[in-house]
Amino acid sequence: MAYSGDPISAEELLFTPVHSIIDQSLHSRLGATTTNGDGFGIGWYSDAAVEPACYKVTEPAWNDANLRELAPRITTPLLFAHIRAATGTPVQRSNCHPFRYGSWLWMHNGMIRDFSRIKRDLVLAVDPTLYAGIGGSTDSETLFFLALTFGLTDDPLTAIARAIGLVEQVGHAAGVDHPFQGTVATSDGESIWAVRYSSERQSRSLFYSTDVTALRRLHPDVEMLQRLSAEARLVVSEPLGDLPGAWNEVPESMAGWIRPGQDELVPFEPIAG
Amino acid sequence: MAYSGDPISAEELLFTPVHSIIDQSLHSRLGATTTNGDGFGIGWYSDAAVEPACYKVTEPAWNDANLRELAPRITTPLLFAHIRAATGTPVQRSNCHPFRYGSWLWMHNGMIRDFSRIKRDLVLAVDPTLYAGIGGSTDSETLFFLALTFGLTDDPLTAIARAIGLVEQVGHAAGVDHPFQGTVATSDGESIWAVRYSSERQSRSLFYSTDVTALRRLHPDVEMLQRLSAEARLVVSEPLGDLPGAWNEVPESMAGWIRPGQDELVPFEPIAG
Amino acid sequence: MAYSGDPISAEELLFTPVHSIIDQSLHSRLGATTTNGDGFGIGWYSDAAVEPACYKVTEPAWNDANLRELAPRITTPLLFAHIRAATGTPVQRSNCHPFRYGSWLWMHNGMIRDFSRIKRDLVLAVDPTLYAGIGGSTDSETLFFLALTFGLTDDPLTAIARAIGLVEQVGHAAGVDHPFQGTVATSDGESIWAVRYSSERQSRSLFYSTDVTALRRLHPDVEMLQRLSAEARLVVSEPLGDLPGAWNEVPESMAGWIRPGQDELVPFEPIAG
Amino acid sequence: MAYSGDPISAEELLFTPVHSIIDQSLHSRLGATTTNGDGFGIGWYSDAAVEPACYKVTEPAWNDANLRELAPRITTPLLFAHIRAATGTPVQRSNCHPFRYGSWLWMHNGMIRDFSRIKRDLVLAVDPTLYAGIGGSTDSETLFFLALTFGLTDDPLTAIARAIGLVEQVGHAAGVDHPFQGTVATSDGESIWAVRYSSERQSRSLFYSTDVTALRRLHPDVEMLQRLSAEARLVVSEPLGDLPGAWNEVPESMAGWIRPGQDELVPFEPIAG
Repeated sequence: MAYSGDPISAEELLFTPVHSIIDQSLHSRLGATTTNGDGFGIGWYSDAAVEPACYKVTEPAWNDANLRELAPRITTPLLFAHIRAATGTPVQRSNCHPFRYGSWLWMHNGMIRDFSRIKRDLVLAVDPTLYAGIGGSTDSETLFFLALTFGLTDDPLTAIARAIGLVEQVGHAAGVDHPFQGTVATSDGESIWAVRYSSERQSRSLFYSTDVTALRRLHPDVEMLQRLSAEARLVVSEPLGDLPGAWNEVPESMAGWIRPGQDELVPFEPIAG
Repeated sequence: MAYSGDPISAEELLFTPVHSIIDQSLHSRLGATTTNGDGFGIGWYSDAAVEPACYKVTEPAWNDANLRELAPRITTPLLFAHIRAATGTPVQRSNCHPFRYGSWLWMHNGMIRDFSRIKRDLVLAVDPTLYAGIGGSTDSETLFFLALTFGLTDDPLTAIARAIGLVEQVGHAAGVDHPFQGTVATSDGESIWAVRYSSERQSRSLFYSTDVTALRRLHPDVEMLQRLSAEARLVVSEPLGDLPGAWNEVPESMAGWIRPGQDELVPFEPIAG
Repeated sequence: MAYSGDPISAEELLFTPVHSIIDQSLHSRLGATTTNGDGFGIGWYSDAAVEPACYKVTEPAWNDANLRELAPRITTPLLFAHIRAATGTPVQRSNCHPFRYGSWLWMHNGMIRDFSRIKRDLVLAVDPTLYAGIGGSTDSETLFFLALTFGLTDDPLTAIARAIGLVEQVGHAAGVDHPFQGTVATSDGESIWAVRYSSERQSRSLFYSTDVTALRRLHPDVEMLQRLSAEARLVVSEPLGDLPGAWNEVPESMAGWIRPGQDELVPFEPIAG
Repeated sequence: MAYSGDPISAEELLFTPVHSIIDQSLHSRLGATTTNGDGFGIGWYSDAAVEPACYKVTEPAWNDANLRELAPRITTPLLFAHIRAATGTPVQRSNCHPFRYGSWLWMHNGMIRDFSRIKRDLVLAVDPTLYAGIGGSTDSETLFFLALTFGLTDDPLTAIARAIGLVEQVGHAAGVDHPFQGTVATSDGESIWAVRYSSERQSRSLFYSTDVTALRRLHPDVEMLQRLSAEARLVVSEPLGDLPGAWNEVPESMAGWIRPGQDELVPFEPIAG
């Protein structure tokens, strides 16, 4: 889940069960019904700090008493939250999302298939000056460092396209049928870039919330919408709540760029190396 | 899950996915589809030690690399395994089942309703000489110590009946409609006693495995049954595997007594104080 | 460690190694040389929230990557920090200090001797309406709830004196020679009350920092002192740093009351029940 | 700590406070006075299993209730135990010693200096077919995989010499003055090889216990020595207990080979690539 908009309490984003667009948030996802219990993380920007902060734990989010203490005391214009379902690498803090490099956050739902078999080639492709920054052992973090290697901080979508392009190239060379699967979100604290792509073109779902101004017109009676800022935008794996018209699916092989003033949706295609 | 029979590897009971009566064990329950991620524990007896051992962790069982190491190296004629879904008390080792007192193990699926409201009265009823043995804060452990107070080690089913009877009495006095819910299992290392009871007479399910000799007659072709000892018996919350005739539901308000030579099923009714 | 004064970053209090009065903070205490590795906790007040927040973990403080993330983002006029050395009760979050009840924080360095033997009598003396608030199993939290029972929120020092008085009475009745040992600190968000007392009159040490205005006169060249607010006050178990005149030992059997405008040091004596 | 000899209880090795050669064991090291609180691990061989088992946790050993349960139930002729003091990599299970590969165990007290700077070159030198086995992020595990690359399973001391030789070569090329420091122990379940070496020739200490038969002659009155097998041998960082003649320091730049029948001490020198 990624939020961008006027500063809001992390508690409202993570725990408050309001049935509306910004909705119940992750409440059910953080609750007893989810099966993603392999770690949890949030990353958030504030006005004061240049670098975002990350709070990440290995236990299921719903068990984390500290998160309940911290969430109401965090106010942020841009927050990433991620619940991990591990795909082969250990459950340890250094493997929890979001990952951070300088002022950038990164998270990934999905996987690089047969990662342990092609990991060495991918890690070798990471810029040697960035290599020491790799803290964990996941496919997702490796993808982040490949994207950084390919210029994430200058041109995020091109860098992601080249990183996934390399994953496909290395994977195919090793006989992996569909090397990449998933959705990716990254931010520099101002914009959010989100990608939905998989080698087999059947990617995990990704949704973004409807423009708040438009939603208010649709639902003039929903009081909560009045409290949201016009720029508020959520990107999620599954719709939160059931407000008609509130959620829009990112189509297959597309990328979104969310920023103050102008959001964009563009086609996404990996760039071969 | 409780197992009694010839010594068997804990790995076989917990992880081996054999589709048969003693079956796949907890494999699916330990897997990604379960939502019981609030701690895990096993308690087991061996020949050498008088006291059973307990291994308990707060993370989800499926994430516990140490359990994978230990299970194949534990051989036991009597094992309890419990996956916790917390009902209001913290996720910490001291709240994980099974609980132990001397040579006795105890586990409970269910709850004492409005426990925090009536806990004080229940704890006060625990024998003062036993009080210091309470290590955690759960309803389940309090019930254990009430049963110990009422003579668990001498007459287990009567003691459990008196303990639940007190819970109902104290609960009703405090205005709780249906104070007790659940299944209970306890053992002294030789026998297993299991109870299915709830104040509303709609208790969580409890199953026991069919006599192995009878099962072999039913399924002469199922090779695995030949390897099981005639005395092998499993008590579980839900049937494991789908072998016809392998599982028998313990009826509402009944208790089972499993021991070498003769198993019994008897009516269970709380005994008022 | 307890801090009261103008809002300051928790990072400065916990990690910044400035060699001066408000000093080096807990850096060495949080570092590899300390042996207090049985959990860590901070509790802090902010302007917005009525209730203080608590962040508590069971691993050694020096290993907590989340604390490094959070500390620079916490600004507070009143912070408690506690590193636990367990004395017989489990290392679990619910046993970590500080403890909280409503707007009150509580921490304790020391012990109730033979606690497991007299715990039942002490817990019975806790007001039944407060009983459900006990979350852990420590002597220190029991003392907190006894103090609450005896009117902590109205008259803190009298309530603490009555609570320790009861501990001594119950302990002596059970044949414990010196039932209480240690230092206690509590706060309502405005004042800090700190007590140094032990039944044997040989209590663990307790120090408070010298008035900042006086310190500036003593050390006009110490730049850091210019940045501290005149009201800044630290209470610690051991002097931090080595600035001459910076630290004053609380004498045996004394209590301090720190509040804006006027601090006091008064004799402390338990009040028998 | 490494033990080799007749099968013995892990509890005796880890917890029993006998003041003699096999001594108090790690009791004090596991106790409140140690400052190595960054994780703990044991690895042990048994008769039945080909692969050794590893039990590793991130909390301080003295807090681990499960270890107290398991130790008395583990009987082993060859056990490694390691208490970690982290040197820059995260405290997580995958970074705890001992490390395992097939039937081999490995542990290391010490460090590769400036590891994050030269890690990439070292990891690149690991055999690509072994690369996927690297589970954590430490210098110690990288050294293990370098030794495996250089033939550890065929000729352990030569492989270790080549691995450390490469570390020194890569380190010197990167401007690191003294790239390697420490002691290393490894085993295949039959023998233990232990190395004391550092680039600056001022290595951390390493001791081995005196031949039990000789010790019995020295101390005919020490009853415990009668119970030890003649082949029993301990390798430790610091002498345990204070029995005169019980401990022998491994000299600087030496390696020991402990095996049934004949132990050897030979000079150790890194082999340049």
